[in-house]
Amino acid sequence: MLEDSSAQRALDALDAFAIELPSWGFADTGTRFGKFHQSAAASTIAEKLHDAGLVHKLTGACPTVAVHVLWDFRPEDSPQDIAQLAADRGVRLGSINPNLFQDQHYKFGSFCSPDEQVRAAALEHTLRCIDIGQAVGSRALSIWLADGTNYPGQDNLYRRKRSLSESLRSVHQALAMRWPEATLLVEYKPFEPAFYHTDLADWGMSYVMCRSAGPRAKVLVDTGHHLPGANVEHIVAFLLDEDMLGGFHFNDRKYADDDLTLGSIDPYAVFRIFDQVAQFEFDTGRRAEIEYMVDQSHNLKPKLEAMVQTVCEAQRQFVRAQLVDRPALAAAQRRCDIVAAETILRRAFETDPSPLLSTWRTARGLPADPLAALRESGVIERLGRERSAARALRGDTVTSSYA
Amino acid sequence: MLEDSSAQRALDALDAFAIELPSWGFADTGTRFGKFHQSAAASTIAEKLHDAGLVHKLTGACPTVAVHVLWDFRPEDSPQDIAQLAADRGVRLGSINPNLFQDQHYKFGSFCSPDEQVRAAALEHTLRCIDIGQAVGSRALSIWLADGTNYPGQDNLYRRKRSLSESLRSVHQALAMRWPEATLLVEYKPFEPAFYHTDLADWGMSYVMCRSAGPRAKVLVDTGHHLPGANVEHIVAFLLDEDMLGGFHFNDRKYADDDLTLGSIDPYAVFRIFDQVAQFEFDTGRRAEIEYMVDQSHNLKPKLEAMVQTVCEAQRQFVRAQLVDRPALAAAQRRCDIVAAETILRRAFETDPSPLLSTWRTARGLPADPLAALRESGVIERLGRERSAARALRGDTVTSSYA
Amino acid sequence: MLEDSSAQRALDALDAFAIELPSWGFADTGTRFGKFHQSAAASTIAEKLHDAGLVHKLTGACPTVAVHVLWDFRPEDSPQDIAQLAADRGVRLGSINPNLFQDQHYKFGSFCSPDEQVRAAALEHTLRCIDIGQAVGSRALSIWLADGTNYPGQDNLYRRKRSLSESLRSVHQALAMRWPEATLLVEYKPFEPAFYHTDLADWGMSYVMCRSAGPRAKVLVDTGHHLPGANVEHIVAFLLDEDMLGGFHFNDRKYADDDLTLGSIDPYAVFRIFDQVAQFEFDTGRRAEIEYMVDQSHNLKPKLEAMVQTVCEAQRQFVRAQLVDRPALAAAQRRCDIVAAETILRRAFETDPSPLLSTWRTARGLPADPLAALRESGVIERLGRERSAARALRGDTVTSSYA
Amino acid sequence: MLEDSSAQRALDALDAFAIELPSWGFADTGTRFGKFHQSAAASTIAEKLHDAGLVHKLTGACPTVAVHVLWDFRPEDSPQDIAQLAADRGVRLGSINPNLFQDQHYKFGSFCSPDEQVRAAALEHTLRCIDIGQAVGSRALSIWLADGTNYPGQDNLYRRKRSLSESLRSVHQALAMRWPEATLLVEYKPFEPAFYHTDLADWGMSYVMCRSAGPRAKVLVDTGHHLPGANVEHIVAFLLDEDMLGGFHFNDRKYADDDLTLGSIDPYAVFRIFDQVAQFEFDTGRRAEIEYMVDQSHNLKPKLEAMVQTVCEAQRQFVRAQLVDRPALAAAQRRCDIVAAETILRRAFETDPSPLLSTWRTARGLPADPLAALRESGVIERLGRERSAARALRGDTVTSSYA
Repeated sequence: MLEDSSAQRALDALDAFAIELPSWGFADTGTRFGKFHQSAAASTIAEKLHDAGLVHKLTGACPTVAVHVLWDFRPEDSPQDIAQLAADRGVRLGSINPNLFQDQHYKFGSFCSPDEQVRAAALEHTLRCIDIGQAVGSRALSIWLADGTNYPGQDNLYRRKRSLSESLRSVHQALAMRWPEATLLVEYKPFEPAFYHTDLADWGMSYVMCRSAGPRAKVLVDTGHHLPGANVEHIVAFLLDEDMLGGFHFNDRKYADDDLTLGSIDPYAVFRIFDQVAQFEFDTGRRAEIEYMVDQSHNLKPKLEAMVQTVCEAQRQFVRAQLVDRPALAAAQRRCDIVAAETILRRAFETDPSPLLSTWRTARGLPADPLAALRESGVIERLGRERSAARALRGDTVTSSYA
Repeated sequence: MLEDSSAQRALDALDAFAIELPSWGFADTGTRFGKFHQSAAASTIAEKLHDAGLVHKLTGACPTVAVHVLWDFRPEDSPQDIAQLAADRGVRLGSINPNLFQDQHYKFGSFCSPDEQVRAAALEHTLRCIDIGQAVGSRALSIWLADGTNYPGQDNLYRRKRSLSESLRSVHQALAMRWPEATLLVEYKPFEPAFYHTDLADWGMSYVMCRSAGPRAKVLVDTGHHLPGANVEHIVAFLLDEDMLGGFHFNDRKYADDDLTLGSIDPYAVFRIFDQVAQFEFDTGRRAEIEYMVDQSHNLKPKLEAMVQTVCEAQRQFVRAQLVDRPALAAAQRRCDIVAAETILRRAFETDPSPLLSTWRTARGLPADPLAALRESGVIERLGRERSAARALRGDTVTSSYA
Repeated sequence: MLEDSSAQRALDALDAFAIELPSWGFADTGTRFGKFHQSAAASTIAEKLHDAGLVHKLTGACPTVAVHVLWDFRPEDSPQDIAQLAADRGVRLGSINPNLFQDQHYKFGSFCSPDEQVRAAALEHTLRCIDIGQAVGSRALSIWLADGTNYPGQDNLYRRKRSLSESLRSVHQALAMRWPEATLLVEYKPFEPAFYHTDLADWGMSYVMCRSAGPRAKVLVDTGHHLPGANVEHIVAFLLDEDMLGGFHFNDRKYADDDLTLGSIDPYAVFRIFDQVAQFEFDTGRRAEIEYMVDQSHNLKPKLEAMVQTVCEAQRQFVRAQLVDRPALAAAQRRCDIVAAETILRRAFETDPSPLLSTWRTARGLPADPLAALRESGVIERLGRERSAARALRGDTVTSSYA
Repeated sequence: MLEDSSAQRALDALDAFAIELPSWGFADTGTRFGKFHQSAAASTIAEKLHDAGLVHKLTGACPTVAVHVLWDFRPEDSPQDIAQLAADRGVRLGSINPNLFQDQHYKFGSFCSPDEQVRAAALEHTLRCIDIGQAVGSRALSIWLADGTNYPGQDNLYRRKRSLSESLRSVHQALAMRWPEATLLVEYKPFEPAFYHTDLADWGMSYVMCRSAGPRAKVLVDTGHHLPGANVEHIVAFLLDEDMLGGFHFNDRKYADDDLTLGSIDPYAVFRIFDQVAQFEFDTGRRAEIEYMVDQSHNLKPKLEAMVQTVCEAQRQFVRAQLVDRPALAAAQRRCDIVAAETILRRAFETDPSPLLSTWRTARGLPADPLAALRESGVIERLGRERSAARALRGDTVTSSYA
């Protein structure tokens, strides 16, 4: 049985816990070996926003949707129209993601390209994203770079670092002027698609770049972007203490950047991340200003089910982290009683958060088990039929081949 | 200066050292984030065989070409016609690779699929490959499975293992009857595209499956298919001693299955693999029957240059391995003189093999530096122009998007 | 609420679930940088058996104790006396562990040493272990080798493999003759203390060696002895299906062979191991004959607490694995419903096993919470005082320095 | 053939390339499983300085010796006497290393310990090291912390970070006042001896701590202290560009912190580190102020041989890095010609540096092959006899046991 006060704190915390959904998480994605297509996968921004709206309706936790400008905003679309489309679906546009890797001119990098014109094009695309972000009332520009090299000697790492640093300063400057309420989120990743070096390989590189860009720049932690064995929750705590953690891209992984649903491989690790955030808030008495976002893109699970699973898993581990008896933990830590301290942490992780979550959901008119509600609704089957028909009408051919 | 006898042995060994090229290594490939297109990339089997023929002309070391049945043999093609096409280009068809991962029905596996009909389709495709292999005079059927699962609980690992075992026995039986001169090569890989488990995750699983399939089945070692830290040359030695090493897929990697050109990240590791083969041959007095094959598919380096680089690098490290003073090494090992033993090995690795390779190439009328010859010939630029024009005529559109 | 039948099955399974304790797990151990000494650490075999007896008294799950012959059997001791000592403490002697790494002559290996005399000494020590095992009524000889090399070229991997194979055949032959009821367990480990190669680097090498040694040889899986990312439960399933899994050494790790308490880093991974065992038993209808053993040796947690924690954690995850609804899981797997299948598995993992464990413990007169009982008993403090005094009397000096 | 100018530049660079030896690298060390003792291993600071002097005499590249205060400075020794001892052996005292991990009170950390008194003791020991460093004319205080935790929840990561930050500021302040010519080097390490988290886990954490401590603090890169796959040369370049690289601890590894001799596992990786330093110097026109130090401690190779090997290997790769044709490389990089750029880099790596090194050594009256000279001298055998006798006289017993 939970003490009432602890349960109440958890419920209050849940109220403030929002998770942003990625528009691309509803579309067909795959591996380099190909894509397995889902009838119900979303193809258009309207469909993606529909699906995000549905997940928000089921979970009550996902008021915003991250968008990828290249995929979601055609040149002929007015950003405001897309924002209105979102509003019609009960959600708002969230972080704005430039695409700096898909065009053929990014073959050797974007902000780090040896080609000045490519760097200029990358900057221009990013500035357009800033304008879109400002226009639609978003709060964050989220940058992930595929920049890197595949072979030793391929490029000058010093020149690349300085090009990157300059570009990010320009981006920050434009953002600070045109879109002052926004945060500039800078992601890192150790490898893929570059396989010898990536220009922002770890949190330290993003940190240094953010410090050099300006005060609105913060580090974005994608939980799958680390080398084997990295202690992600330690990085989270370190960044929080430095006031440099901007947000998360949630997913799980066993090997590399596998982009599996959150907690599917190591739920305790997810809990420990939330635990560090909660500990920070307990220690400082103030709320951590963090963007919680999903970034998963695997292609076997039905997209909508995978998204609802991840949101519910995030809530489960988030709630558990609120239940840690922090005064008792602090006391055990002070007396170096490892077993007692660990037991306190594990007790929270082992607590079944379902009753609390049911209470919270019922109070908001949400289904007590969003995943079950989704599956029982038959909506995925219906969307599959409708979208297959629509694709057929449009004459979409969906093929891709590895070689 | 090399002793004459040692140099002569190395030259003789080079004569017998052939490396098979992969047809798909000349086509555009990429990462899940997209492909960067090369004008000179091959699109058709004719173009791929042309390019392989060119590499063989330059290096004299690549008489055969591995083919992927799905991509290289259209139902309307007669295998003999493709074989003739190869002969016209100065090469022969080498290992036959079924494709058991691209069709939509392989979403949950091929030989391991829970769906009996899918398993039957996979077997049928493989039997067709056997007939093709027999018809074109190839010597090996090379199986890589993308089978695996993405989430704990997704499937029953025992059922999958038994389905796989049955399928491989059927394949072996058909091969033994219809194509008795062939070897069945069974590859393994720890992850990708499956991210929770792969059914043939390591050499041990391939080994057990081969033993159960029959005597013509051997393990195929792809140098990039190992977990971080794996000692690949030890696995090679272990398999050789068990008479269970069937061949190699050569490439290099820093992180995962990066498919970079051979030796580009860790040339000493490549040398150590060849060293174990040479040690085996020295110890036993017999030649290791191994298929040496390239399997690389990265998309930044020009395809033809990348292939010539890899072949030349393989020859360099192969020659160095022949130069190890094995009697002296054995003596140092016997007296546990680590520093002396290591020094002997390193001396061979540090030896410049260029003079020997030049001698060997000149004697065969080959360019002394095949890569330089390729670059100076202007052939890549010419192919780029011709193939772009041909694609335009055919109306090929080359696009792919991550989401 | 659990269904009664499922709960009853879990209780029955618990009855048969015994975990062996390692005598060395009660002694002071450390890292290469030194040991932090615990007053209550056991120094003598009598003290170790006392502590193991105490853990068994608290948990009811640990009737046997693994012993290390070098540390636990002085030449002057009669094995039967040690067995009697164990009986006095309420436990029996379990697996017998030769020590083939500590003596100076093992500098270059034991069974793989280039020195024939060293190999003979290793064999002789192992034969003595067989005699001890037979004399004390144990059921297993458990072999872990530190054999390996630190530098490329240091030794001939082929010669080492054959020496090892010969030695294990001799061991198996002796065991089959003199101690026919015993199993020969063969462990593997990818690195440490050897850092270039280890002679038994992975499960595949142990498997091949066991097959060559004889039918009583089985593979021992130490959960911490894998490269980053290895799917341990898959290895477990593969070995079980081959009837080649002999047992486990339980511990947890984040990086290398960290020897932490079980489930302290990744409890879901522990559950998945037990799940594969339970699935095997469900599929085949027969019990897996496996030795479950603890092998942990970390030096910050109080030894007795750490051991009780690990035993209780093993029981928790073991019980959860019994609660998986296997018919429903099989149905979901058959229809490729990944989300449903995963949900069934996760539901069992998320179930609180405490009520079931309390029921089981209470029925046996055990404390409902063994760890709490241990901590409340004050026994560790008392042992600390007594053993400090005893060490002072004996004039033991406990020092060690890294360099 | 090298161009004269390039050869001359390499010779000049060699003049300035000094590598510091670690006193502890001449003593017996081992793994947690025990130590294999060498008769010729040094036991006293006099013996260690003797050995370092010998390596310097053979290589001409090692004028300074890093010392570990706890092991090398007994309370009764005057630092000046030790400095004189060094001078007598032809070397000077180099970086001063506090020992903040061996004493029992460091069980839960040093600067990060929950116990204020322990933190104070750690600070006091470090201040003593500052005084010693100043007294002996050293130029660097080199801090490696074993601080970390073994279990989730064991301690508050935020409190630890702040304690660490405070301590380092105090250390920096004292150093700036009492020893203004010194650099404060701050090492990092992802794990071992702590296995859940280490307080300075990666370069980013050391960087942030150095920035907060003060301008004399710089990051120390131990080449073996990284997670699998980390691109160390990229980290080196990043730190150099930030003017935050203080120095190196050289060694090699295959798995974890294996402390093998430099380049024994991956010589190309060592070359690439030196290449980044040389590129930095080429790009900026100024010399990188870096402390090059050896930190290896493996126990199979004879200590003196291992040290000479590492020094010679460092010189080999250092010289090769000087031979890279940087203008040509820059041109190839600018035109995105990956293959040409890589070829230029590889050509330098493949160049045999022996003639250049012989020239350089002969000009200084050094043996052309220091390792051969050492082995032929018989000095290791002589030291083995003398030191065994001395140990026997002193009644040293050398034993250690894992459990």
